[in-house]
Amino acid sequence: MQRILAAETPKNIGKKVLLAGWVYNRRDHGKLVFVDLRDRSGLVQVVGSKELGELGSEDVVEISGSVQKRPKEMVNPKIPTGGVEVRISEIKVLSKSSQPLPIHIDEIEEKASLDKRMDWRWIDLRRPANRLIFEVWTAMEHAFRQYWIDNNYIEIHSPKLMGAASEAGSELFEVNYFDRKAYLAQSPQFYKQMAMAAGFERVFEVGPVFRANPSFTSRHDTEFTGYDAEISFIESHQDVMEELQKGIAYALAAVKEKFGSEIEKTYGRKLVVPKVPFPQVTMKQAKDILVKAGVKSERKGDLSPEEERELSDYILEKEGHEFVFVTEYPIEVRPFYHMRRGDEPTLTKSFDLLWNGLEITTGAQREHRYDVLVSQAKEKGLKLPPIQFYLDFFKYGCPPHGGFGLGPSRMLMKVLGVENVREVTYLYRGVNRLTP
Amino acid sequence: MQRILAAETPKNIGKKVLLAGWVYNRRDHGKLVFVDLRDRSGLVQVVGSKELGELGSEDVVEISGSVQKRPKEMVNPKIPTGGVEVRISEIKVLSKSSQPLPIHIDEIEEKASLDKRMDWRWIDLRRPANRLIFEVWTAMEHAFRQYWIDNNYIEIHSPKLMGAASEAGSELFEVNYFDRKAYLAQSPQFYKQMAMAAGFERVFEVGPVFRANPSFTSRHDTEFTGYDAEISFIESHQDVMEELQKGIAYALAAVKEKFGSEIEKTYGRKLVVPKVPFPQVTMKQAKDILVKAGVKSERKGDLSPEEERELSDYILEKEGHEFVFVTEYPIEVRPFYHMRRGDEPTLTKSFDLLWNGLEITTGAQREHRYDVLVSQAKEKGLKLPPIQFYLDFFKYGCPPHGGFGLGPSRMLMKVLGVENVREVTYLYRGVNRLTP
Repeated sequence: MQRILAAETPKNIGKKVLLAGWVYNRRDHGKLVFVDLRDRSGLVQVVGSKELGELGSEDVVEISGSVQKRPKEMVNPKIPTGGVEVRISEIKVLSKSSQPLPIHIDEIEEKASLDKRMDWRWIDLRRPANRLIFEVWTAMEHAFRQYWIDNNYIEIHSPKLMGAASEAGSELFEVNYFDRKAYLAQSPQFYKQMAMAAGFERVFEVGPVFRANPSFTSRHDTEFTGYDAEISFIESHQDVMEELQKGIAYALAAVKEKFGSEIEKTYGRKLVVPKVPFPQVTMKQAKDILVKAGVKSERKGDLSPEEERELSDYILEKEGHEFVFVTEYPIEVRPFYHMRRGDEPTLTKSFDLLWNGLEITTGAQREHRYDVLVSQAKEKGLKLPPIQFYLDFFKYGCPPHGGFGLGPSRMLMKVLGVENVREVTYLYRGVNRLTP
Repeated sequence: MQRILAAETPKNIGKKVLLAGWVYNRRDHGKLVFVDLRDRSGLVQVVGSKELGELGSEDVVEISGSVQKRPKEMVNPKIPTGGVEVRISEIKVLSKSSQPLPIHIDEIEEKASLDKRMDWRWIDLRRPANRLIFEVWTAMEHAFRQYWIDNNYIEIHSPKLMGAASEAGSELFEVNYFDRKAYLAQSPQFYKQMAMAAGFERVFEVGPVFRANPSFTSRHDTEFTGYDAEISFIESHQDVMEELQKGIAYALAAVKEKFGSEIEKTYGRKLVVPKVPFPQVTMKQAKDILVKAGVKSERKGDLSPEEERELSDYILEKEGHEFVFVTEYPIEVRPFYHMRRGDEPTLTKSFDLLWNGLEITTGAQREHRYDVLVSQAKEKGLKLPPIQFYLDFFKYGCPPHGGFGLGPSRMLMKVLGVENVREVTYLYRGVNRLTP
């Protein structure tokens, strides 16, 4: 017999079916035993007697039985399969769970600490609310890729092992590479720009990035997934921002269509598909707004997390939009490869994108003129030999181009209204966290 | 004016257009100058006079002009835009190329060595034949993902930084991780199995894998992209093979539809969409076939590259199929986590998939019973403490499951009929190659 999912039981009333999944919980009523069986589609109640006697929490079982309507007064309206139950005829235990479990899956039980849940992440992920995170991630990522592929981007997989430090020497992990050193890429920045020099014109990449960042905040990690895109023959960073906002609106529309109601039910977050174009302010305008709002400026030419939240609140109130671009960061806070304004060379043709107070993207037009790039690198105090391989990309004809890097885990935090990046990461990596 | 692509010029005869791209080559005929302009869509001839005088190979330019039909006798049938040319009215040089170029893009020129082409990979990638590789890769990968998503897989991004050696201590890159050591994942094996313990039931991952493999063959590299999938509630490795072959057939059908004729024109390879199910032989049958064919067996219970080629040739001749599964590898050549046959415990429930003589996939049903897994690990001489985090996945209820790892660069070699993995890798990484 072919296995069906718990969610398919209501379509199979009166039929004999095969189910498989985890024992979510059990209730003994005299001789009768009720078991809620959990699989990837949800829960269904199974009814039996002594054949269920030995079952414990989180045992994995295969059950055959007949699907029956439950008496009206017994219907559980909280779950989609609440109107049926499966009268068991046979059971096979596929895997016994040790008892007791180190953390409880049932939300009713006292919640374990985040750190303990990370220790037992595979049990933690069994919660339907956690499973939903990665279903949403899958849908969001697929939609982003669909947007890029529909718009003739090429997908690249650039190497994570580099022979020299990429953007800056700090926050870099060193690898023992045979008889020499290699470094883990902090971003695909240099290599997606290489694709522009190669004439690919439009590329995207989805992959891990590594930051030897010793901070412990709720939004930082040492390894995370990055989305990167780069496009050629642009006029300015505005062309990059246009592509970015279109991609985000496309992806969030897809997520909302597929999971909007489930997200609202589970996380209480009403997802809004943002209108295009997104509002934008220059850094100077942002600072003016913040001063008027009475927020103390901590960083010159850059925004603190508090300022980011305040600015987003202001824009949401004023323009009814959850997103806001901040443009024209001064050169001090931007890397050497960001292009500068011709008429105002202390400002870069760059942007950040904030969503409800969190920076989710950084982007810019890049400097593609070899001589200018070299002089900007020198000005930033970079040693040229380690980056000469990168500078060479601009020697043999390279079009004007720009791009962005976007953090999907930060997107997910905002999609679901979750505060900590650890919650939306499959397996979090931090200074003190390399397991499981 | 909105830029159009070279390939769009035939639809714009008589119109003024804006083009942008690279100077592929130039021909001077007295006062007239002919330039072949290359962009991501192909080539188009541009005609002018002294305004083109300064242009050199691989300069990047923006050109406006009017599209005209070429006289019949001048039509170049070799390129799709051979029937038109663009009479230039304005030109803007966006980026000058240094001269001479270190390698030539024009295929007519003497081919540079593979190693030199790798040194200047971004120029090498400008060849339309090379660009095609990554367009095909993009289409293939998107089709694989579409198959998985249509079949309710969740996409995961598992960490590449691990606290302990994964499958075996050898071929492992060590990372300096703050005040301790980390290791680069040789595959997402342990973490995709974790998703099975987490009840995800079906997952896939696309990401980099790292092998400190000191070999210099044409099919090995130290970093490459891997496709990984894992599914739960299987009966045996046959369920995994069924999913794999369906995915491959789906992906190759998509590639053939989009790029079949271009692949044949450029690479002379007629892509065949394989029929499902693929043929299969056990390792024992494979060895019998090879003995009869007079091929000397070099490795007991495993196939040498020569044996793989011979076996594929035999199956192609006998069954007309480019693919063949080899099943039931003996335990000696398989890792500890491969499940063994209950009736014949010296054999694993595992398989390799060969495509035209090259191994492109390894897969198996995994051992999900904690006690059996521990005893198999001990038998293989593994120390338990470093893998205890993995063994724990099987303590609290884990369904029977299995999966595979597939090498897209090896797939691409066979899609295009290319012999060296370096040709189909965006930026190859080997023992002596960490740049560009």
